[in-house]
Amino acid sequence: MTVTWQDIQAASARIEGVAHVTPVLTSTTANDLTGGQLYFKAENFQRMGAFKFRGAYNAISQFTPEQMEAGVIAFSSGNHAQAIALAAKLLGTKATIVMPQDAPPNKLAATRGYGAEVVLYDRYTEDREAIGNRIAAEQGGTVIPPYDHEHVIAGQGTAAKELIEEVGQLNVVITSLGGGGLLAGTAIATHALCPHAAIYGVEPEAGNDGQRSFRSGEIVTIETPKTIADGAQTLHLGDITFPIIQEYVTDIITANDEELLDAMRFMAYRMKTVVEPTGCLPLAAIFNGQINVTGKRVGIILSGGNISDQILRIEV
Amino acid sequence: MTVTWQDIQAASARIEGVAHVTPVLTSTTANDLTGGQLYFKAENFQRMGAFKFRGAYNAISQFTPEQMEAGVIAFSSGNHAQAIALAAKLLGTKATIVMPQDAPPNKLAATRGYGAEVVLYDRYTEDREAIGNRIAAEQGGTVIPPYDHEHVIAGQGTAAKELIEEVGQLNVVITSLGGGGLLAGTAIATHALCPHAAIYGVEPEAGNDGQRSFRSGEIVTIETPKTIADGAQTLHLGDITFPIIQEYVTDIITANDEELLDAMRFMAYRMKTVVEPTGCLPLAAIFNGQINVTGKRVGIILSGGNISDQILRIEV
Repeated sequence: MTVTWQDIQAASARIEGVAHVTPVLTSTTANDLTGGQLYFKAENFQRMGAFKFRGAYNAISQFTPEQMEAGVIAFSSGNHAQAIALAAKLLGTKATIVMPQDAPPNKLAATRGYGAEVVLYDRYTEDREAIGNRIAAEQGGTVIPPYDHEHVIAGQGTAAKELIEEVGQLNVVITSLGGGGLLAGTAIATHALCPHAAIYGVEPEAGNDGQRSFRSGEIVTIETPKTIADGAQTLHLGDITFPIIQEYVTDIITANDEELLDAMRFMAYRMKTVVEPTGCLPLAAIFNGQINVTGKRVGIILSGGNISDQILRIEV
Repeated sequence: MTVTWQDIQAASARIEGVAHVTPVLTSTTANDLTGGQLYFKAENFQRMGAFKFRGAYNAISQFTPEQMEAGVIAFSSGNHAQAIALAAKLLGTKATIVMPQDAPPNKLAATRGYGAEVVLYDRYTEDREAIGNRIAAEQGGTVIPPYDHEHVIAGQGTAAKELIEEVGQLNVVITSLGGGGLLAGTAIATHALCPHAAIYGVEPEAGNDGQRSFRSGEIVTIETPKTIADGAQTLHLGDITFPIIQEYVTDIITANDEELLDAMRFMAYRMKTVVEPTGCLPLAAIFNGQINVTGKRVGIILSGGNISDQILRIEV
């Protein structure tokens, strides 16, 4: 079982009128600097501030009445938590979220604000999947993992579908890469609509398990990487996402934290938009020279905008 | 001579295809917090990052061939400078800009980046109008003042025209207020399209000359106010803007710097968009309780997004 273009089309129909059709941003300055024509799909303007709402809503909306009654369980470093919490609220089911103690405070608060029950754990010593599965066994309820799930992947692919349907053919499509849900969904949608486009995933240099997996042909597992890209601190690709990435993706590359900060500053000061570190991975990989976009029409998914007030500060 | 709705319609035609038709942002959280339905016209996404491009382009595009040959001169605390510089470049004429020494470095750099010649002055001891007029007398060239000019006012009114034409009837329209160019243009457009709407201008509490002028019926002049709202540090309303404001505006109110910082944080963390302090005046005046928008459809002009990296910082 895998994910098809038809699954993404069906997901689009399910989220229609619920998820935002986010705007596509452009910047003359970004084009001049890179030599390409860049189209930024602004999922930082998505509900709860990230593309994750798409996959979460697509997954929960396919629950049976029994599953709806028992509720949904998720483990997440942040945006998936909020996405499940909000989607559960909108669809009228209960959400229990397993979150790391050191998740950004605004993400913890937002998850609780959507009415979810939050269970904390230590991401450096405990295994979130085990905790999530234990709660599911004890309380009932369906675990929706953050990326390795067909319905989640199909939902995430709707962002690239909207982008390409709005701006037309692209030569290059780039997303950030954590566990691969966004990249896998984007790759399927892009392959269907722009069969000749190059597709890249970009992950933090400190957590390059995806790159090593892609190049070795086997899923590599790492320790929790220390990076400001908190949405891409995953330990390994998924059993479902990895084969999709192997089939459709051109390459996986990296950017370091300093490069991410520079890209965030460009987005804020020049493009007037707040993008979280993980969402800046694609632009950082263009700016650091790892993707040459000269003369290309380039689609970039800005994955989210839920940034810590420790990194982006407003004060006198 | 004053400004009419027909002038704004003509300005719209002149800037079409050159100025961006900026997006209208909405926020469920903002609506929940205020009880109104808020429509934010995102002029921070305008070319050079502020509504000022509209008025500058509308003014220079009406130059005679002789004026085009001699060039344009402007004195500005920042955004008008960049607007004149960019519009001059696009229209093929020379720009000389008189700017305060303590203008945000990014605004100085951007103005020079558009190819303008920059002349610096001390805003606490020197008179920018006198300097601008002296340069005009010595070099030739046409001075375009930042607000008290019919073509500038008509251009600024095109933002409200676009907003109302996109979202429909509004009960309340709010702009920031410096010298009154944006407020006057907005008031004329709003009066034409939504004759019963209340119209508010919001200025910094430390520089409330507009409020005092509005309430006393005579233009009040103040010392340069100390406020983070650098786009609203004007000393007085204009001979053209004041009568328009008297005729159409409901009231002029204020917000202080702390309230502006809170509004900027809301825009950045919740709405994921970077708005400069001056552009946050309207939202700050709703949050501080001076404008009750419960049950109202409210248009807000986010005037710009050119923020100092001293106020908005991105760092680890």
